[in-house]
Amino acid sequence: MDLRNTVLSMAEWEDLIHRAEIGEVGEPLVNVDHLDSSPYDAIFVGGGAGGRFGSAYLKARGGRQLVIDKWPFLGGSCPHHACVPHHLFSEAAREMDYQRWNAGTLWFPEFDDKRCSILDLVELFKNGRNNAHAFMNWQSKEQLGMEYILNTPATVIDANTVEVAGERYNTRNIVLGTGASTYLPDVPGIEKPGVFDFVSLIEELDYEPSRCVIIGGSKIALEYGSFYQAAGCQTTIVSRSPLMRTASLHHVDEDLRTYVVDGMRKRGVEILEGAQPIEVLGNGKVTGVRVQLADGSERTIDTDFVFIGTGERPKSQPYVDALGVEVDDRGSIVVDSRMRTSVPGVYAIGDLIGSPMEMFKARKCGMTAARNIMGEPYEFDFSEYPDFLHTTYEVTWVGLTEAEARERYDDVVVIQMPPKGLRNEELSLPMAEGSMLYGFTRPELSGFQKAVYDGKTRLLLGAHHVGFGAKDAFQYLDHLIRKGITVDEMGEMNELFLNPDHFIQLSRLRAGQLDLTSL
Amino acid sequence: MDLRNTVLSMAEWEDLIHRAEIGEVGEPLVNVDHLDSSPYDAIFVGGGAGGRFGSAYLKARGGRQLVIDKWPFLGGSCPHHACVPHHLFSEAAREMDYQRWNAGTLWFPEFDDKRCSILDLVELFKNGRNNAHAFMNWQSKEQLGMEYILNTPATVIDANTVEVAGERYNTRNIVLGTGASTYLPDVPGIEKPGVFDFVSLIEELDYEPSRCVIIGGSKIALEYGSFYQAAGCQTTIVSRSPLMRTASLHHVDEDLRTYVVDGMRKRGVEILEGAQPIEVLGNGKVTGVRVQLADGSERTIDTDFVFIGTGERPKSQPYVDALGVEVDDRGSIVVDSRMRTSVPGVYAIGDLIGSPMEMFKARKCGMTAARNIMGEPYEFDFSEYPDFLHTTYEVTWVGLTEAEARERYDDVVVIQMPPKGLRNEELSLPMAEGSMLYGFTRPELSGFQKAVYDGKTRLLLGAHHVGFGAKDAFQYLDHLIRKGITVDEMGEMNELFLNPDHFIQLSRLRAGQLDLTSL
Repeated sequence: MDLRNTVLSMAEWEDLIHRAEIGEVGEPLVNVDHLDSSPYDAIFVGGGAGGRFGSAYLKARGGRQLVIDKWPFLGGSCPHHACVPHHLFSEAAREMDYQRWNAGTLWFPEFDDKRCSILDLVELFKNGRNNAHAFMNWQSKEQLGMEYILNTPATVIDANTVEVAGERYNTRNIVLGTGASTYLPDVPGIEKPGVFDFVSLIEELDYEPSRCVIIGGSKIALEYGSFYQAAGCQTTIVSRSPLMRTASLHHVDEDLRTYVVDGMRKRGVEILEGAQPIEVLGNGKVTGVRVQLADGSERTIDTDFVFIGTGERPKSQPYVDALGVEVDDRGSIVVDSRMRTSVPGVYAIGDLIGSPMEMFKARKCGMTAARNIMGEPYEFDFSEYPDFLHTTYEVTWVGLTEAEARERYDDVVVIQMPPKGLRNEELSLPMAEGSMLYGFTRPELSGFQKAVYDGKTRLLLGAHHVGFGAKDAFQYLDHLIRKGITVDEMGEMNELFLNPDHFIQLSRLRAGQLDLTSL
Repeated sequence: MDLRNTVLSMAEWEDLIHRAEIGEVGEPLVNVDHLDSSPYDAIFVGGGAGGRFGSAYLKARGGRQLVIDKWPFLGGSCPHHACVPHHLFSEAAREMDYQRWNAGTLWFPEFDDKRCSILDLVELFKNGRNNAHAFMNWQSKEQLGMEYILNTPATVIDANTVEVAGERYNTRNIVLGTGASTYLPDVPGIEKPGVFDFVSLIEELDYEPSRCVIIGGSKIALEYGSFYQAAGCQTTIVSRSPLMRTASLHHVDEDLRTYVVDGMRKRGVEILEGAQPIEVLGNGKVTGVRVQLADGSERTIDTDFVFIGTGERPKSQPYVDALGVEVDDRGSIVVDSRMRTSVPGVYAIGDLIGSPMEMFKARKCGMTAARNIMGEPYEFDFSEYPDFLHTTYEVTWVGLTEAEARERYDDVVVIQMPPKGLRNEELSLPMAEGSMLYGFTRPELSGFQKAVYDGKTRLLLGAHHVGFGAKDAFQYLDHLIRKGITVDEMGEMNELFLNPDHFIQLSRLRAGQLDLTSL
């Protein structure tokens, strides 16, 4: 289907994508400028976050690009079954939790667990997700001027040739960005119906789970576990490591971790740390999980729903086969700081090059590849970055933890709320949008926050927040920490009070000190 | 009551403050170091935001201060009847609105207006506010080492003498910071029972309003009006100016304003612009308001509750009388950029010096006075600042509007969501925490945002946001705009996706362009 000279409306795009998804449109959706005979500077294989942003950047720089995706839309897994449903479910978790704590008080009626349905929310998401897909297609074509071929996979033939729907396209460079998929831990029975990951949850769930066992202790486990629990599905998390102490999460402050994990326990999530699954049970469908506990004993948990949160592995094999690109022992394609693989002219980006599998990294990888392809030497170091997860809270952090700072600096100053010496239970602060009612009804639920400074240079080293409404700010705090921001500069900023993070005014309370002390 | 050598717990402070408030403790609460014979560098008259932060700063700089407040707590009106209840009510408004829109779907039961009580929320606030008060007293004494006398007013005798509870204190400088109070418009009947401002709402409301008329069109009117409406109290706003087009609000982008005001109308708020109250009616208690409409006709609105949102005036008269400080025609004490009044050694801060009556200004005024008193020439210019208000949304803005930018720059580039050319109704974006469910159920409610750039210098000029979760970020955006931040630097930041403001990734989509265009 040649879309080159057609401007589809949002509704038309939604309809077209829907028909492609249900198999009614089998042909490629082609937005290629056939009148342009100039060579492609790059073909992006995979139109997810990295491929789309890389394409946009390269096109904006005056290059010619083509991006190809097997799906009938650009934007990749994020709006299809990753970040977007996760955020929808986490908002639902926050809201159900909020309505539950306040049930029977003020304007809140009694909370009825039986109204909560995981399946309903999955259906809500699936019925709505094509809107974002439609927008990506519309924006990429009408605003960004990108060329693309959708609804058909690309096959990489060699470093300068990609085949799509039987046609071969030549290109100066190839940018690989086809992502990762869930890594299934080696547990007998893990393939049974009733075992889901975040993808199959969206695509395949067709019953209402009544009990949940989650395998894993990192982001996905906390996020989806908090959602299932909030939705009234009793959840047990089985994790080898303490929660949030997995290799994939860095800079997790211990006070923050304690607040987060205690908060999940308060809400009824059962957390088995130091535990591992031995077998997923059931004749046919899942009926339980046999678990070895920290003390070596075994326990069987009856469940009709097992959720895997043990991470993802890059889908790199086709490129090893076709191009011989170097990969590491987890299958991640090895790239340098310019996103160049071991094969000249071939770049790789996003989840395909390993952790962190985050949007900022995928998109900036795409941008980095584009800049280098367009002749601008540009490096991207993603070893440090701000991070977040959801429980029924937003949990956000950037820079060093207090412990990390104390290892590296002699004079570490900590500014936190509640301050050391007061308990969450006795102080309504911190409070702001989303935690105000908690402050006045259950102060221990109103959040926790900490800023870590070097007393000598007065530089902000790290910031840590559990609550609501600070996530957006942490993007800018990351930038400021990189550039170097002092307690004095923080104290001179203009807070919007009540601010979700109290860092500005708390910093100001100490900034007058020539010898900084904690607060 | 000499508290100098006592460490009160939070619970003890709460109890003491409570007993003082109900008149059981009439004596001053004194935390003064009587063993210290050094002179006071400053006495802060008024222990609100400015006096407390000024005291903290001066003390941290090694000076000696004393802060005095008539109330039995430090922190002033913000936690007593201003910012904190406003945030509590706005969170309630957001939540009631959310539960109303989603009523009968997913896990939401039918919404029962009759459960919503303005009075209940006022009582909830009043019963809990002493916790924050207790914390201010605790922190100021135990963490910040401030000296204070509470629960008794100060009388300024001359520029070096303050009298408290019959005792005179000498000081090198005085810092005046006793705030402002609501300005009652000159309308017959405005003094009737049933007419409230945000202070008397907290202190005096003793019935459940069934119908509300708000006089005014600025922040207070939008914020409290949205709350009353969400709580099921039909609200009419009577405003001379278009909403948000009052002198006290600057840099209000017209697209933002339209989204906000339309959103209020969607929720049933009746907005009468170009209208003014002629008379508040009622024999004894309020029964209605007679209003002159924009077309010159008159209308009587029956109501049992009138709310004044027409602004505040500084309480400066005592200082005019005692010291002869210069004031302007609104009664604001005139200060220079170092907070110095016309009387040597006398400073004034906060609401007492006029608009903007915001926390950041009050606190930074206090800091500015403290620095200058301690011998550091320091100026504070609060002519530009980020701002926000609540409806059932958080509405936040900083820097120039699109129209202001177009007046000043030739090549203005606008990056917004939804983009020009798409309607809110057809696009689920923007979405993030708090607007996810709207995105999937009623896209037109999911928010609006706009970044304004100068195409030539590529500098960010302004940012505008309606939604949730971006307020905290706007504090840092204000700092970045002041320092100068380009679209290229924005595009290189690390977003935490889905970010409430989409500015980073949207900027990146355009940053590749050598000639920037709108998105």
